[in-house]
Amino acid sequence: MPPVASFVEVLPDSDFPLENIPFGVISTAQQASPRAATAIGTYAVDLLVLAKAGAFEGPQLGNGVAERVFGQPALNEFMSLGRSAWREARSTIQATLSETGPSKLRGNKTLQAEVLKPLNSVQYHMPAQIGDYTDFYASKEHATNVGVMFRGKENALMPNWVHLPVGYHGRASSVVVSGTPITRPSGLILNPQTKAPEFSTSKKLDYELEVAAFVGIGNTLGDSIPVSQADDHIFGLALMNDWSARDIQQYEYVPLGPFLGKNFGTTISPWIITLDALEPFRDPTPASYLNAGTYDAYDVKLEVAIKPPSAEKPTVVSRSNLKYMYWSFKQMLAHHTINGCNMRAGDLLGSGTISGPTPESLGSLLELSKNGSEPFQLTADDTRAFIEDGDEVVMRGYCERDLDGHRIRIGFGEARGKLAPPKPAPM
Amino acid sequence: MPPVASFVEVLPDSDFPLENIPFGVISTAQQASPRAATAIGTYAVDLLVLAKAGAFEGPQLGNGVAERVFGQPALNEFMSLGRSAWREARSTIQATLSETGPSKLRGNKTLQAEVLKPLNSVQYHMPAQIGDYTDFYASKEHATNVGVMFRGKENALMPNWVHLPVGYHGRASSVVVSGTPITRPSGLILNPQTKAPEFSTSKKLDYELEVAAFVGIGNTLGDSIPVSQADDHIFGLALMNDWSARDIQQYEYVPLGPFLGKNFGTTISPWIITLDALEPFRDPTPASYLNAGTYDAYDVKLEVAIKPPSAEKPTVVSRSNLKYMYWSFKQMLAHHTINGCNMRAGDLLGSGTISGPTPESLGSLLELSKNGSEPFQLTADDTRAFIEDGDEVVMRGYCERDLDGHRIRIGFGEARGKLAPPKPAPM
Ligand SMILES: [Ca+2]
Ligand SMILES: [Ca+2]
Ligand SMILES: [Mg+2]
Ligand SMILES: [Mg+2]
Ligand code: NI
Repeated sequence: MPPVASFVEVLPDSDFPLENIPFGVISTAQQASPRAATAIGTYAVDLLVLAKAGAFEGPQLGNGVAERVFGQPALNEFMSLGRSAWREARSTIQATLSETGPSKLRGNKTLQAEVLKPLNSVQYHMPAQIGDYTDFYASKEHATNVGVMFRGKENALMPNWVHLPVGYHGRASSVVVSGTPITRPSGLILNPQTKAPEFSTSKKLDYELEVAAFVGIGNTLGDSIPVSQADDHIFGLALMNDWSARDIQQYEYVPLGPFLGKNFGTTISPWIITLDALEPFRDPTPASYLNAGTYDAYDVKLEVAIKPPSAEKPTVVSRSNLKYMYWSFKQMLAHHTINGCNMRAGDLLGSGTISGPTPESLGSLLELSKNGSEPFQLTADDTRAFIEDGDEVVMRGYCERDLDGHRIRIGFGEARGKLAPPKPAPM
Repeated sequence: MPPVASFVEVLPDSDFPLENIPFGVISTAQQASPRAATAIGTYAVDLLVLAKAGAFEGPQLGNGVAERVFGQPALNEFMSLGRSAWREARSTIQATLSETGPSKLRGNKTLQAEVLKPLNSVQYHMPAQIGDYTDFYASKEHATNVGVMFRGKENALMPNWVHLPVGYHGRASSVVVSGTPITRPSGLILNPQTKAPEFSTSKKLDYELEVAAFVGIGNTLGDSIPVSQADDHIFGLALMNDWSARDIQQYEYVPLGPFLGKNFGTTISPWIITLDALEPFRDPTPASYLNAGTYDAYDVKLEVAIKPPSAEKPTVVSRSNLKYMYWSFKQMLAHHTINGCNMRAGDLLGSGTISGPTPESLGSLLELSKNGSEPFQLTADDTRAFIEDGDEVVMRGYCERDLDGHRIRIGFGEARGKLAPPKPAPM
């Protein structure tokens, strides 16, 4: 039988059908204080207004809890309620938006006008206050490609890489929501001629195509999250562009890792897609031999597009897939906490650049242009080796499959950011 | 003439004379909600109660501002008010506690009983909510010593080291206040015989003697903090023990830097010492040729002591000094933001292990025991190569000099932590 539909129109290629129900934080011209929202078709759904209208009566979100957690400017407290509360919210919202469910919203045009806001009219905010952001390095193809370029074929993949998901701490303060401009950074860069470091604006501005997991339920310092329970600790996934200045990174990263080459900005998509929504899209190819049979990879089609200032539309430059990850988010979370490191609701775990086995599926310009040595044709007018001032980088992701004879499609929306020219050096 | 004294007794070797006025967060049995405090002699001074009593009338802290910022469970909002407000608070508190100042507190025994709490009766809390924590590597002696051990004499100091203060992102969630137990971590460790990684508890548990700066005033993403203005952005300094599991660190750190070998716990002292209090202790030896003549190093004597479970008292194992830092906190802050990375009030910048030029001044056991190969006599009964379960590590710091014929001494208090045995592996 066909899946239940929403009374709100959802076109077949929409990212946000009734099966999705992502979570984010929005404000509007009428309601300037940021609050929780979901999306259906081309509308944002104001969850605070819905909560005030009494839509959440269930065991965990009733008694004013929904009003409290959805009225906050970040989802952290909602995340910390746990998976049963996330499921209660999702199923309540699905019922409220369905064409057959309770008529509280469906039968009330006045309430609909307050609750449903066209997506193109809302302001997005960071969905959570990120306490700590960790970036991993979980695509074997990417790690190998970069290793060959930076350290040669012999040392491309370090011996530890297949034994644990390699990761490092990133900067939480500079993670920004889609649409926030990114300024081209300056720093010390090695002059290839003189072999001396020079202060300069970055000439190798790159993106990294990533997916990031938001932690929902954390753990106490000293305890660990077992890999078998890790899914219940993950609230959901978002798209992430880990902007990278390759020349700054290359000079600074030995021996303590990436720093200023990364922390000038990281863009995430505004909507967090829950693991429950992604459940039908688990990839039947096991992610790794650590957990054979548990299908921890998700089949999420990913693409990167670049829109130069001169062009009307972005041009797709890469098509990859979340299933190319060698390490799963469950494994990252289990590894991250095996030493007792504590996670908190809202913490962010990046996948690392997701490159696939084919030339079309490379997740960075470092790989696509071979560190700038092979510029490619972007449009009829433009070639690119790295990102230029005014370029807008747009990442998209979606799942699609036939389920019970019907096509199901769930989208991530966009992570979008435009590169602004460098500012003058401080004095 | 002698410096102004407090009406509260301050013994000559106290860390907290009237010249200090550190800031921290405490709670007491009677007042369970954490609030701002300072310290004088052997007493904590409840700044919320003092604010409610009307002690802060000045331009920035009057009109309820002091009550608001000192009533919060972290100093972040006070920090974000800026250096003129920090100075107003310090001078108001000094006048209130002096034996010649206004008699509001001095002449009111009832208020004194509410405001002054014996230090040994208060509960310390994290002085700020740390948004991001960055650890640097600013002692040339330490960087060289470690480089020799991990990479050999040829590659000890990387070429970039003298050109910029090398740093990496740490984990904010696991920074804990003095007194919090630290659990021995487990992880993947290379077996030196088989050369294969094995899951094990860490056998090389170390401390790192550091001093950390709290950022007071931040900057907007895309902007930079010039080195000439950096001092006004730094709220103050605290002692820090960057606990490190050397065997976990050694296996994981290539190519993206330290991660689980560090993020299981970092201990800071409860009191933040302002740069204004430290002003008389600037070291006349320039910290580096970058800013010759500005005396950015502070002469702060530092020591590390270890108390094994069997001993009554800690034994000092190292005596170092903050002036051994090659890079200053000003330089770290200017470097950290040169790419537009944004700082926020409460962010923490660690100095890196502070080792000096002599064998007595090594800031880690890695250096003291030559990576465990040369255990040393700790007490008559005990030798140590690394930290053992039940050991308590105590770091102390103080400045001392003769000023105008009078000895001035300002202390940092303690950063103290006891190592708890490992927990069983998760299942
Ligand atoms: Ca990355
Ligand atoms: Ca350190
Ligand atoms: Mg980034
Ligand atoms: Mg640490
Ligand atoms: Ni005198």
